[in-house]
Amino acid sequence: MISINATSDPSLRSWVESANSPDSDFPIQNLPFGVFRCGGITESSQIGVAIGDRILNLSSSCQAGLFQGLPQEIQEAILASNLNLLMGLGQIAWSTLRDRISNILRWNGETTPAATASLIPMSDAEMLLPASIGDYTDFYASIFHATNVGKLFRPDNPLLPNYKYVPIAYHGRASSIFTSGTSIKRPSGQTKKPDEQIPSFRASQRLDYELEVGFFVGSGNELGQPITIEKAEEHIFGLCLVNDWSARDIQAWEYQPLGPFLAKSFATTISPWIVTKDALAPFRCPAFQRAKEDPLPLSYLSDSDNTQLGGIDITLEAFISSPQMREQGIEPLRLSRGSFKQMYWTIAQMLTHHTSNGCNLRAGDLLASGTVSGESDSARGCLLEITQGGSSTVELPTGEVRSFLADGDEVILRGYCEKEGFARVGFGECRGMIRLDT
Amino acid sequence: MISINATSDPSLRSWVESANSPDSDFPIQNLPFGVFRCGGITESSQIGVAIGDRILNLSSSCQAGLFQGLPQEIQEAILASNLNLLMGLGQIAWSTLRDRISNILRWNGETTPAATASLIPMSDAEMLLPASIGDYTDFYASIFHATNVGKLFRPDNPLLPNYKYVPIAYHGRASSIFTSGTSIKRPSGQTKKPDEQIPSFRASQRLDYELEVGFFVGSGNELGQPITIEKAEEHIFGLCLVNDWSARDIQAWEYQPLGPFLAKSFATTISPWIVTKDALAPFRCPAFQRAKEDPLPLSYLSDSDNTQLGGIDITLEAFISSPQMREQGIEPLRLSRGSFKQMYWTIAQMLTHHTSNGCNLRAGDLLASGTVSGESDSARGCLLEITQGGSSTVELPTGEVRSFLADGDEVILRGYCEKEGFARVGFGECRGMIRLDT
Repeated sequence: MISINATSDPSLRSWVESANSPDSDFPIQNLPFGVFRCGGITESSQIGVAIGDRILNLSSSCQAGLFQGLPQEIQEAILASNLNLLMGLGQIAWSTLRDRISNILRWNGETTPAATASLIPMSDAEMLLPASIGDYTDFYASIFHATNVGKLFRPDNPLLPNYKYVPIAYHGRASSIFTSGTSIKRPSGQTKKPDEQIPSFRASQRLDYELEVGFFVGSGNELGQPITIEKAEEHIFGLCLVNDWSARDIQAWEYQPLGPFLAKSFATTISPWIVTKDALAPFRCPAFQRAKEDPLPLSYLSDSDNTQLGGIDITLEAFISSPQMREQGIEPLRLSRGSFKQMYWTIAQMLTHHTSNGCNLRAGDLLASGTVSGESDSARGCLLEITQGGSSTVELPTGEVRSFLADGDEVILRGYCEKEGFARVGFGECRGMIRLDT
Repeated sequence: MISINATSDPSLRSWVESANSPDSDFPIQNLPFGVFRCGGITESSQIGVAIGDRILNLSSSCQAGLFQGLPQEIQEAILASNLNLLMGLGQIAWSTLRDRISNILRWNGETTPAATASLIPMSDAEMLLPASIGDYTDFYASIFHATNVGKLFRPDNPLLPNYKYVPIAYHGRASSIFTSGTSIKRPSGQTKKPDEQIPSFRASQRLDYELEVGFFVGSGNELGQPITIEKAEEHIFGLCLVNDWSARDIQAWEYQPLGPFLAKSFATTISPWIVTKDALAPFRCPAFQRAKEDPLPLSYLSDSDNTQLGGIDITLEAFISSPQMREQGIEPLRLSRGSFKQMYWTIAQMLTHHTSNGCNLRAGDLLASGTVSGESDSARGCLLEITQGGSSTVELPTGEVRSFLADGDEVILRGYCEKEGFARVGFGECRGMIRLDT
């Protein structure tokens, strides 16, 4: 059951002033979780919650007694160095903790709230991976993305016969997932150009980003015990942005018959703040409406709650900034804007499908949606689609053109939810720059 | 550099009598590492070394002072609950420790060696995963397997154009890797028979095993820092057997375009003892000799050491035992026998390729070879190949027939090295039974 609770009340105000700005990603109605440290690699990592331009340090808040009365398990999970323990506690614990944090940060007339001492400027913190990610799985849940990409290879028959039945996915590489801001080294690999007889090992010439949404597994399941579609959302802790960097030339040469491997495993970037399902509750919407001629999902992927509220209306944007643009003080150029509500498969369907063979998920596992592309041409979530396989170019404000990413280019993903009568809930940014020294 | 040291001396004898039997998998020349516990799930897991039909408990040996004088890092790693720390220490540490263990277990005329108290019967121990496996990668390194499988789909053109250039691989699922003896629940999933218009969700009817060799990463590499072919073996801690259980009907319907997913992620079984490179040194052999018309590996996958000694001559066997066979006291039936030396790509080439895009490996990561099939028909490492896609059957001694695995069937993988003038070095068994209650 997806329901909106009092923590989403738009009339709530925080004593952290910056959180009350209408265009803040992190008002008191959001309260996303992350892991940070201050003062370099010798310092320990701690769990925090974003509020305006500040972070509430949950660890020091707990030591100050602000979580007194909450179950011992929650207090222990708050003191951990990442979110895995908290993720494993389940929805009741997550909502209980959110309610308390909302109370701590709420403006109630006191001039010096006790939590002031636990507040840190975001600019002083280094954001780390929110969880130890055991396994990372990447789906292919946008039918528009699958169709656009398929057209490049099979113009007359872009979509494979299994697409409308199977939430297609592949296992990704967990070790190379990093948080926003980590620079990306252009990968080398085997590539073979159409006019070449044999492949060469060289730097990728078709480096791309993919705009995706990720979701973290909360409580897991035992091996051999699938999670039903009715229960699927209970196992999801929250969502983030994902940039699934892709080397298209490496991918084209390597992917038959076992799928993408080195074309993806050199780096994946995620946004550091995990936005919870409670925060997203006001923005739930019907699952993608299939065309009349489309088959219904098989019954294990189908229930009425999922049909009615399985979608989430998250606006997603990708921007690019070249070194020249930054030198000239030009703002990043928006490459696309779309919505997560246009995904063919819901997050519940992806999770249920993943476990339908008995595969066990663990707290902290990351599932990602695959490239989020929408129906319109302005909602294509990667350069491969935007430039139709590199056959056209994007013009930057400096007059530069791009078919794929150049060294020094920075890609910035943004996500936010806006709805009349509710506070804006944002994801912050997911940034990554292609290193110049590669 | 691969060289044979004094710990492989065939004249060495152990005071553990069972280790001196010529057909023991675990003589004093082997000394594989594993993780075990005695007395149920409340007991802690400890590192041990197999010797004959016993386990030397390294933790209690260390507490008894048997590792005195070794560097502190090694003693700490020995006391850990899994092998990740030791794996991360690198080749010099591994060889130093092996040398000491060989000394501890060597017969030198004492009647009551100090280590006697640290010896445990294997039958009293429960073997656990040897390491926390961060990422699991499965290759496709047998050209015979790739050709046999390719023929089922493309009789005239079985091998894809990239095969002889690219050590093809895909990311596997780490969470569902278990040790030998774990029972396997037949997975359900979407399958579509040739005569059906739409898929159904049902129990797999084409459940298969895959006979593979796995190797554990020791010291890893930083993101963006590839490991050269010359250095690759230094990063490999040791080898084990792997059964990559596969649901062929689920695989056929799901695998386009992103590769196998639920067809594999329901379970992977590994043998519990990791045989080190030092133990395997006597059995090194030239890398697979390519046909004259085959291309040479690209230079990043090529060096003379790898050509001369990149292979390992491990005999690999798969057996099946049905419930009827067990009831009638009939021994398991051998389905195949081949050698790991027939793999098209060496373990060094697989590891170097994996990092060639800058992907970071971590201590405890598992890489597997893919199905080991040889040139001869009797060396086919899975039922898909043996029964040519299920079009023929294997006859069991009871008169039963199998195209794929039936409930209650047990698959047993065995591996061992034998060579004139050296002690046998075995891998033990990798067992798994398809549950009857599914």
